[in-house]
Amino acid sequence: MIRISIIGASGYTGGELIKILLKHPHAKLVHLTSESYAGKPISSVHQWLKGRCDIVCENFNVSALTPDTDIVFLCLPHGASFLPVVELLDHGKKVIDLSADYRLKDPRLYKKWYKLNHPEPHLLKKAVYGLPELMHAKIQSAHLVANPGCYATACILAAAPLICKHLVKSHMIIADAKSGVSGAGKELSLMYHYSEANENLTAYSVGTHRHTPEIEQELSLCAGNKKVQVSFTPHLVPMNRGILVTSYVNLSKKITQHALIKLFRKFYAQAPFIVVLPSGEYPETKNVSHTNYCHIGLHVDEQKHTVIIISAIDNLIKGASGQAVQNMNIMCGFNESEGL
Amino acid sequence: MIRISIIGASGYTGGELIKILLKHPHAKLVHLTSESYAGKPISSVHQWLKGRCDIVCENFNVSALTPDTDIVFLCLPHGASFLPVVELLDHGKKVIDLSADYRLKDPRLYKKWYKLNHPEPHLLKKAVYGLPELMHAKIQSAHLVANPGCYATACILAAAPLICKHLVKSHMIIADAKSGVSGAGKELSLMYHYSEANENLTAYSVGTHRHTPEIEQELSLCAGNKKVQVSFTPHLVPMNRGILVTSYVNLSKKITQHALIKLFRKFYAQAPFIVVLPSGEYPETKNVSHTNYCHIGLHVDEQKHTVIIISAIDNLIKGASGQAVQNMNIMCGFNESEGL
Amino acid sequence: MIRISIIGASGYTGGELIKILLKHPHAKLVHLTSESYAGKPISSVHQWLKGRCDIVCENFNVSALTPDTDIVFLCLPHGASFLPVVELLDHGKKVIDLSADYRLKDPRLYKKWYKLNHPEPHLLKKAVYGLPELMHAKIQSAHLVANPGCYATACILAAAPLICKHLVKSHMIIADAKSGVSGAGKELSLMYHYSEANENLTAYSVGTHRHTPEIEQELSLCAGNKKVQVSFTPHLVPMNRGILVTSYVNLSKKITQHALIKLFRKFYAQAPFIVVLPSGEYPETKNVSHTNYCHIGLHVDEQKHTVIIISAIDNLIKGASGQAVQNMNIMCGFNESEGL
Amino acid sequence: MIRISIIGASGYTGGELIKILLKHPHAKLVHLTSESYAGKPISSVHQWLKGRCDIVCENFNVSALTPDTDIVFLCLPHGASFLPVVELLDHGKKVIDLSADYRLKDPRLYKKWYKLNHPEPHLLKKAVYGLPELMHAKIQSAHLVANPGCYATACILAAAPLICKHLVKSHMIIADAKSGVSGAGKELSLMYHYSEANENLTAYSVGTHRHTPEIEQELSLCAGNKKVQVSFTPHLVPMNRGILVTSYVNLSKKITQHALIKLFRKFYAQAPFIVVLPSGEYPETKNVSHTNYCHIGLHVDEQKHTVIIISAIDNLIKGASGQAVQNMNIMCGFNESEGL
Repeated sequence: MIRISIIGASGYTGGELIKILLKHPHAKLVHLTSESYAGKPISSVHQWLKGRCDIVCENFNVSALTPDTDIVFLCLPHGASFLPVVELLDHGKKVIDLSADYRLKDPRLYKKWYKLNHPEPHLLKKAVYGLPELMHAKIQSAHLVANPGCYATACILAAAPLICKHLVKSHMIIADAKSGVSGAGKELSLMYHYSEANENLTAYSVGTHRHTPEIEQELSLCAGNKKVQVSFTPHLVPMNRGILVTSYVNLSKKITQHALIKLFRKFYAQAPFIVVLPSGEYPETKNVSHTNYCHIGLHVDEQKHTVIIISAIDNLIKGASGQAVQNMNIMCGFNESEGL
Repeated sequence: MIRISIIGASGYTGGELIKILLKHPHAKLVHLTSESYAGKPISSVHQWLKGRCDIVCENFNVSALTPDTDIVFLCLPHGASFLPVVELLDHGKKVIDLSADYRLKDPRLYKKWYKLNHPEPHLLKKAVYGLPELMHAKIQSAHLVANPGCYATACILAAAPLICKHLVKSHMIIADAKSGVSGAGKELSLMYHYSEANENLTAYSVGTHRHTPEIEQELSLCAGNKKVQVSFTPHLVPMNRGILVTSYVNLSKKITQHALIKLFRKFYAQAPFIVVLPSGEYPETKNVSHTNYCHIGLHVDEQKHTVIIISAIDNLIKGASGQAVQNMNIMCGFNESEGL
Repeated sequence: MIRISIIGASGYTGGELIKILLKHPHAKLVHLTSESYAGKPISSVHQWLKGRCDIVCENFNVSALTPDTDIVFLCLPHGASFLPVVELLDHGKKVIDLSADYRLKDPRLYKKWYKLNHPEPHLLKKAVYGLPELMHAKIQSAHLVANPGCYATACILAAAPLICKHLVKSHMIIADAKSGVSGAGKELSLMYHYSEANENLTAYSVGTHRHTPEIEQELSLCAGNKKVQVSFTPHLVPMNRGILVTSYVNLSKKITQHALIKLFRKFYAQAPFIVVLPSGEYPETKNVSHTNYCHIGLHVDEQKHTVIIISAIDNLIKGASGQAVQNMNIMCGFNESEGL
Repeated sequence: MIRISIIGASGYTGGELIKILLKHPHAKLVHLTSESYAGKPISSVHQWLKGRCDIVCENFNVSALTPDTDIVFLCLPHGASFLPVVELLDHGKKVIDLSADYRLKDPRLYKKWYKLNHPEPHLLKKAVYGLPELMHAKIQSAHLVANPGCYATACILAAAPLICKHLVKSHMIIADAKSGVSGAGKELSLMYHYSEANENLTAYSVGTHRHTPEIEQELSLCAGNKKVQVSFTPHLVPMNRGILVTSYVNLSKKITQHALIKLFRKFYAQAPFIVVLPSGEYPETKNVSHTNYCHIGLHVDEQKHTVIIISAIDNLIKGASGQAVQNMNIMCGFNESEGL
């Protein structure tokens, strides 16, 4: 049994982590922290835990946590993970950070997109971008895993095989992304007020969404450090969960739809959570909802020399807490899909 | 053309009023007030008004308003209408108040349910409860109309014919009410956060909802001042609009379903917005959505001596802004359904 | 490992059974039957099973099934379970029937509500009504369990403690029930067409819903065979999952809210899936969604001598497949909540 | 008063037409036809018409219709309008066809995409593609207007100014389109079953949607008959109404966002239903819901030489029935926005 603490357990990703870990055969929840709910049972925050888990929330305190914890998940907003990560690593703990704070390798990019100076730039090199389908070996030996963004997960998984196999012409990818509302978290805003978000569809953060640089960073890595550009446009869809990304790529050489499906299947042959759909079938968010799977469908338009790649995940599971547990499994030497 | 001002135009009921009045053949919008958006065009609040209405919001100021206004709608939270109503009446304006401030005749009830002393108890007698189907004559000559609550409208219209016709045994009515989320207005709260309200159903304010006393007041009036009690339980339903109330009443005498439907139709023969459905048909909120209609369906269980009455309205139209315009039409001598 | 077959695996309850049983530590799925999809992998029906389960659907054939099956779940429409149940029992198999065919003890009631002659009336006595919170001992030794209806589960769990403890005055209960759309199954109908059901709320089957007699049967049993009557009105709510029932009961004696909550908790002290909420808290369907829990909240109106009981379940889990697995656990001597 | 008949009045577009025309100051509904509901009042189909319109549905019969009809709307599935259109034109009636039958100029394209031989190819030249923002003059004198597809309306309005002004580099446009479910009409299918479509998002008809050729036809016309290609991918969004299209275009020359917005506003200066949003604002389907407006927002990425154009309409109004009435207004010499 490994002993687990969750920092910031009161949000949606914290809740999903608890749900998964309560059923995980090798995990034991020890500490849950929440500044707003310290002193209250976690089941008063996540009411579906009533009768199932009555751990009481604490304030975060590294010396209280560390004696009986092996691994720590951080579910904090960006900018809030810097210090706790350093403290926890100093105490020899393994850390999985679900925020954006350790995802970008270049501190100037962090500054540009998040408007904050990164106080621990030396740690960025040690942090491993926790996308297991591409980073499996590095995650095995990592002490600090930066869990990818939800949109980034769906975008990178869709495009990586094409880029790794040099099938992309212009290194310019269009990623038209759609997400359910839980991706916005629990913070109140008129945009996510039920009467505003229901029966409505809109694009937002056009050209400015913060997942753009991590998608470009990881895909450029796939391209052998040749710069890949992504035109990324997110949309808000009236449903709780799910991300669907429709990516448009110019092909650098002729390839049939069947050949491309085969190529994707081979590329992901060792990835237990990737399902590449047969020709003519397309992902639906409901088919991955409440799971750690990513479904991918492909349509090659030979006349227009383009491929449309559609990828679907559950934003809270494969896009956050499920992937974090997948990373934990790999870091701890468990079966990659244990408890998922 | 009568000249109209709306106090508190930035909320949902304000928006619906604007929508209706822009198409009303005898109405002209003059002033729109909003403390939060003063100086900004109303189309920056209600973006669907872009290209259709560009009146600029003002702060409320009675002397600025009154010179070119004939009738005023107040769309303020309870407790905020007291003073403006007095000022507007003093300037000889007709007032339709959509808040709860002038609905209850007994200031002690107001104190009990709203936790505020009523500063203008003398006005409570002059205020007319603006349910046109029961109060038509009084509304014609009213200077101050207290527009009914949304739930109250649906509950009273369902039970009034039975009570007026002395068909109720115990004078205890169970009203199980369900509403879409727009009834909660625009104020942010975790309960109405999309990810919390979507795919969820819950009861709330059980035994404590503030529409209870106005339902009891009006139905007791129907009963010839014999006290009618209502067990009222509201529920929050994941949809934008619509109220459906299922009322359970013990019958004091035998009556068939067909006879009861006939009785309801006769009772509402002069009411242009009441549709009593044929036997075996039941209201659906979508059939009254975006309209000022109330659909009513009846089921008599002769064995159990009970009748189930189901009533449906659009909470923002017949439950608020549409009914307010219906009241205006009556006060101004227009056709009751003009513009609706 | 017990070996399990599911008859009628292509519907929603079949799908949920598969989902639960794939993770159950003592269960192994052997046969899945579907007349419409025979020869096709079950993952082509329930696409979320892609990469997780590739059992191929068969036509139902008792001699093909029985050699390697220990226990059989039937997920067929009413009227279709009669014969398979007889055959399976004859082969010595344990059977859990999710249809309504073996729920009513009186074949005349079956005839009255389902318009069919019951061909196996002798089996009705042997069948155990599978509500574990009330029937635990009988289920342990049962060969045929009739799994309760979804609405019936929520209604009976809400009222049983009051009736068993003789706290009900008139033996007439009003149960105002609301369900998500998945309760209607997969069969196409305009009523469940997205554009018709979304943004809509309606009552249906008023006074005629087929769960009424099983609720009355079981509650009358609780009352020591004194006839209990239920006025049951279901409503269709625009969400996928969840049932919320608001029951109104006249109290036969004075009892405070706190005392009643205590009584309910004692009544359900051995029931692992019942959560009786603290005073002032009410169930929400999202808090039981995708779980086998039933949340119950109580409001006593001492002035009106009534109690309002609100109960919430997931219609597909505690209202169907989860409860079926709970029954299986009890029949097989496993921990009652194993795999749930 | 012009006298109007609607062929195929029982579907969603028929219903919306009735709703608009009942309030139109110069229109009078005379005949409503429906093969399925002949002999029944239209209010038994569209129940929200109860108490508002009780015209009885008829079977289609050209000689019964024509004596007292001036203009006819056809709301039939593709393939069903051929003959009625010919008959109605022969009787000298003006016809607005909401089906796809007369939209494509080239009968071979019709054959290719709709798998039917077009029996009236000579009429294709006479038919006017009814997009008033581009075809105003031709619509004025038209006898047969082919009302555009819903997706096509949103796509063409977004791209036309760029193409007309020669700002597009590759003549290859990516149009990622999202629609509410009412676009699929009333015909039952598992894809539109509430429990399947709710809480789900999916692409469909990838590379094969039938609105593609009409978009390409009209945009090629804008390009001076230079072939424009569109990669069109529709998605199904869990909401009733609304289309949002996100179009990606490569710019042929440098232009700032502000200059482009200005250009769009000038292009649509005479179009009463087009709103080009200010810089930094993006369309939301709710802001055009139940209206005939199209909102357009623009984002220029100067670094990537691309422009993202987002357009939103109500699929049933500007995408069908509202646009049909707009066409009628122009054909009859009324104010273009009369009754809309």
